[in-house]
Amino acid sequence: MLENKSQERTSLEQLGEFGLIDHLTKDFTINHKSTLKGIGDDAAILDFKDKKAVVSTDLLIEGVHFDLSYMPLKHLGYKAVMVNLSDIYAMNAIATQITVSIAVSNRFPLEALEELYAGIALAAEKYKIDLIGGDTTSSTTGLLISITALGEAIDTNIVYRNGAKPNDLLVVSGDLGGAYMGLQVLEREKEVFKVNPNSQPDLEPYSYIVERQLKPEARNDIPKLFEKLGVQPTSMIDISDGLSSEILHLCKQSAVGCNLFEDKIPLDPTVIAACEEFKIDSTMVALNGGEDYELLFTIDQDEFPKIKGNPNLSVIGHMTGASEGVHLITRGDTKIKLTAQGWNSFDTKR
Amino acid sequence: MLENKSQERTSLEQLGEFGLIDHLTKDFTINHKSTLKGIGDDAAILDFKDKKAVVSTDLLIEGVHFDLSYMPLKHLGYKAVMVNLSDIYAMNAIATQITVSIAVSNRFPLEALEELYAGIALAAEKYKIDLIGGDTTSSTTGLLISITALGEAIDTNIVYRNGAKPNDLLVVSGDLGGAYMGLQVLEREKEVFKVNPNSQPDLEPYSYIVERQLKPEARNDIPKLFEKLGVQPTSMIDISDGLSSEILHLCKQSAVGCNLFEDKIPLDPTVIAACEEFKIDSTMVALNGGEDYELLFTIDQDEFPKIKGNPNLSVIGHMTGASEGVHLITRGDTKIKLTAQGWNSFDTKR
Repeated sequence: MLENKSQERTSLEQLGEFGLIDHLTKDFTINHKSTLKGIGDDAAILDFKDKKAVVSTDLLIEGVHFDLSYMPLKHLGYKAVMVNLSDIYAMNAIATQITVSIAVSNRFPLEALEELYAGIALAAEKYKIDLIGGDTTSSTTGLLISITALGEAIDTNIVYRNGAKPNDLLVVSGDLGGAYMGLQVLEREKEVFKVNPNSQPDLEPYSYIVERQLKPEARNDIPKLFEKLGVQPTSMIDISDGLSSEILHLCKQSAVGCNLFEDKIPLDPTVIAACEEFKIDSTMVALNGGEDYELLFTIDQDEFPKIKGNPNLSVIGHMTGASEGVHLITRGDTKIKLTAQGWNSFDTKR
Repeated sequence: MLENKSQERTSLEQLGEFGLIDHLTKDFTINHKSTLKGIGDDAAILDFKDKKAVVSTDLLIEGVHFDLSYMPLKHLGYKAVMVNLSDIYAMNAIATQITVSIAVSNRFPLEALEELYAGIALAAEKYKIDLIGGDTTSSTTGLLISITALGEAIDTNIVYRNGAKPNDLLVVSGDLGGAYMGLQVLEREKEVFKVNPNSQPDLEPYSYIVERQLKPEARNDIPKLFEKLGVQPTSMIDISDGLSSEILHLCKQSAVGCNLFEDKIPLDPTVIAACEEFKIDSTMVALNGGEDYELLFTIDQDEFPKIKGNPNLSVIGHMTGASEGVHLITRGDTKIKLTAQGWNSFDTKR
């Protein structure tokens, strides 16, 4: 759980709640003019002026969303922030502030929380986010992180899920399936470790996909790219549950259908190699794996020249009338109805 | 846990995460023009125009902050919202939106969550708050509620903790100690019930203090009263941890001292009677009990005529120079140094 097993252990009772918050947040700096008052009062005060405020929240729970036996706490802190920022970027907004609440059992020493906050601080610094508040309390079991992210956007730039039209192109950033295959590798190593605690895993060949799982990056570059290219997506969502589930959200909320082309789905060679090794179909992984935190969006066909050839973006399909349904067109030209098999934390079968 | 033990039990797996959110939030209405987009996208969109945004967050955990053996779920939902709104009112702001994230173990059927949300809905309706987002997930144990509250305020109306000056009057709304004594009554009844499950508790004589514990009300009337009376407090905080702890916060952040007069602390007769019955000193209860969600503030002495005789407000002391320290002046005219003994969720001794 702690990277350095020999370090000091300071119990949380020694500090108390206020001492703990002060200690963990003292090195955070304020980056945004919109943050008038951050941590230290009953509430934070923000000033978005003529921009709209964008608000999203996510909960990460030990044993459900992460496993501390292979997720270092610093990575967890970083990832928890990414998961939330991704939702802000999916509105084509700029993320500006976060609140972070954590509940921890007494089995966590102060040094463990310091590592968690080091990851949060790294994310805040890299993505220029102000930590403006939070709550820190004990839990009867395990670790829980609840983050609310705030952002700002000019009204006309905001992209909702419900604006896709028939014939719009379906586009995705980056590549898919890496986070899921990284998890498979980590879970296999955990099983090996249980049998032989002296085994030294060689994760080098899997470094890309393991990093996609442990240290994902939210695509703050994509809203900036849209601005630079003069592209205004008609709908957008981030890929947290899996491509299939997200396409179904866009189609349902926009009242359109979709044809997704299997041969257009962007896959990193490491993902393909890992899929072969684990004997899993790479298309299924991209469709249902989730946690890639890429952005999925639709654009009018007239905008295609602006994005053509951009290495960050792949056109993977097009929208249709709602009556045509939502389908995957396979490499063998078969039409398969898309169903959501993404992450469902209430589904005890996975 | 459920008020009607004979009702249906629907497992959460049947609905899945998205079905659950849709089901629980479908009856919530939007009250504020500032809520441009609520639940249903990656993030909510708000428009505070020329007002400042006020943001606060709190985490409530089963076994730490509440005990479901005497806290009905509907009350818990209501109280969870109150705890958060209280922080917004403590900035002299108007609360406008909340996000609600919950983690529940599979031992909770859908009907239990419906009760929890009925309490949240009641609070939202009564206090005119828009539910704009959240996250719903499973937990390995118990129930957890994370709420972020948003509000709005005109810049010059906002009251921080750090504006108190020597000679300012210290004022509190309502009365203190009720929530703590209500908890004592409920815990006693729980013990009686363990010994004899057929016992019928008579809580009638304790209805005021039990209600203070189970169904507290955040003081949204106080910012309105300030506006009506033309009063601008110099500092303000809400009483969640206990009068003593909150006074120390105001003094520390304002760099002042304080004399608090024991005989001025407002106590309801029910609280005094319960303290006598439980053989607890009522002043200690008011100082350290917490969870009263009253507002504690300071005003310039010149403002005194505006609040004089107001039944909602009690002047309980005055601020001094920092070097004079923070003291309780007892009924016997003894000066005792105030220490924080309020709620500390990391303190395993209570």
